Amino acid sequence: MRSIATTILAAGLAALTAAPAGDPLPSWNDTAAKRAIIEFVGRVTREGSPDFVPAAERIAVFDNDGTLWSEQPIYFQLAFALDRIKALAPQRPEWKDQEPFASLLKGDLKAVLAGGEPAAFKILMATHAGMTTDEFGKIVKDWITTARHPKTGRLYTEMVYQPMLELQAYLRAAGFKTFIVSGGGVEFMRIWTERVYGIPPEQTIGSSIRTAYEIRDGRPVLVRLPEIDFYDDKAGKPVAIHSRIGRRPIAAFGNSDGDHQMLQWTAGGAGFRLMALVHHTDAEREWAYDRTSPIGRLDKALDEARARGWTVISMKDDWNRVFPFDAPKGR
Amino acid sequence: MRSIATTILAAGLAALTAAPAGDPLPSWNDTAAKRAIIEFVGRVTREGSPDFVPAAERIAVFDNDGTLWSEQPIYFQLAFALDRIKALAPQRPEWKDQEPFASLLKGDLKAVLAGGEPAAFKILMATHAGMTTDEFGKIVKDWITTARHPKTGRLYTEMVYQPMLELQAYLRAAGFKTFIVSGGGVEFMRIWTERVYGIPPEQTIGSSIRTAYEIRDGRPVLVRLPEIDFYDDKAGKPVAIHSRIGRRPIAAFGNSDGDHQMLQWTAGGAGFRLMALVHHTDAEREWAYDRTSPIGRLDKALDEARARGWTVISMKDDWNRVFPFDAPKGR
Repeated sequence: MRSIATTILAAGLAALTAAPAGDPLPSWNDTAAKRAIIEFVGRVTREGSPDFVPAAERIAVFDNDGTLWSEQPIYFQLAFALDRIKALAPQRPEWKDQEPFASLLKGDLKAVLAGGEPAAFKILMATHAGMTTDEFGKIVKDWITTARHPKTGRLYTEMVYQPMLELQAYLRAAGFKTFIVSGGGVEFMRIWTERVYGIPPEQTIGSSIRTAYEIRDGRPVLVRLPEIDFYDDKAGKPVAIHSRIGRRPIAAFGNSDGDHQMLQWTAGGAGFRLMALVHHTDAEREWAYDRTSPIGRLDKALDEARARGWTVISMKDDWNRVFPFDAPKGR
Repeated sequence: MRSIATTILAAGLAALTAAPAGDPLPSWNDTAAKRAIIEFVGRVTREGSPDFVPAAERIAVFDNDGTLWSEQPIYFQLAFALDRIKALAPQRPEWKDQEPFASLLKGDLKAVLAGGEPAAFKILMATHAGMTTDEFGKIVKDWITTARHPKTGRLYTEMVYQPMLELQAYLRAAGFKTFIVSGGGVEFMRIWTERVYGIPPEQTIGSSIRTAYEIRDGRPVLVRLPEIDFYDDKAGKPVAIHSRIGRRPIAAFGNSDGDHQMLQWTAGGAGFRLMALVHHTDAEREWAYDRTSPIGRLDKALDEARARGWTVISMKDDWNRVFPFDAPKGR
């Protein structure tokens, strides 16, 4: 009969010599991108490593549109806005004679786009402002749990990248705090980012409109105003990272020139860092676009990535699966 | 010889019947305030309790000036600004002929105050803007680790309330995420809040000035601009809570009318909540002031607290120790 000490010792040895846990990044092919990620995590988390970073400083930031979920054929939040215009139209008969609403309701998206930024602003404010924050949250929740993507017929929240879900979980398991830093609306994202990505509201940073505090019927509310508060894109991203997180990330993931400054800012700190771009190279399973795309244009950031040796993730070559609903390829 | 199963069972029973751990709030007298805090934490953390709140939603917010550290005879950040004016004066000879600097350098604080908000704005911007965020951080760090309070001769970071340190640790041990939501400058606070309170930069929310992203000598920097970005006081506090945290707190701690709306917003959610005000009632160990004080005025919020049964913490009656350097009273 073995003593308790022997039993404990045997169990400890078994744990130490157990087969390594399963691959934490099974949807990633064994290419340079995956190896760069695993090398980075190993170096910054290994105690005694010259690149060791304490857990509190392990901040990783992710763009959302085109980095964590798709952004074609139009940004999903724009699809939300267009659906809202249609839903609200019966209560807004005057829209039949007002642009860009009239063209939009006739299905003439080309005329809407010809209106440029002022038209986009009108659509944004007509759909995102004028209600309380609680009311807006409910509207987004209803849409995000029912609306379907025009190409795949899937819920928008299913059109997230399986390899990036694995990457986020892998980083969190290694002690990282994961943040979204997106040009998308923060109140649009927070409704579903915790459930879909495991990123809580307080770690979801995005663009915002102003709100005003009011007491209505004896209860405090925040009313969404038709004014831009903060545009979290391009040079706004390092500004937001500093103002909201207050630490410089050691890892940053983007996919477009809108993420260029965020990657520069991350690269500018001392010590070992990981800057990576998701490159949309897979016309078959997702979309292929970069330097000339009106959505998610990737041009200057791609040049800097090549010049400085940042990691460029090719969806076609580096991922054996794109969406959670895809069958793994070649496995 | 006892079997392994018996040994494990005995150890388990011993753990269950062990004496309760030491009082987590030893600097609090056994009065209604302490009992309200302990009752609140028990009800929201006990699984199966009708008031149970999942850990992810256990958000507690704290004002800083007058709630976590002292704010007399002047806000500590103002003391920093005045010290900076003196330090910078040799490089700014023109200040000898410019108000409010001239009066300030002559030690005529009354004349400075007569200049009202425009004078305060000039002092703030002369000391808080015009440098990079890294440079500002270093300036604050140098000051906060050397400057001493005029009355006690202590470092400002020693003039924090021991009972509130215990309260923060107690809440965190119960699964709460603790945030600062202060009218103070966020970049001033973040230098020391993690070390002193255990609250990381990403959970420290405050007032801010604008920053601009630039590449200087090939390196990205954020430059602090002489423009207010956000004033995190009064109705700004619920706005900031919603915009930065994105969840409604279930516990809020303040001390002045600047915290009134934060407490209202916290109280306005569903379920059991804790709203509390630190009442400065101890002229002997700290300061005594409320309805007519120019600093930390507590008037309307005190009325609402009394009317709605919010917890009012009397420093004199509810705390047996104020500062960490005080000897405990009557113990």
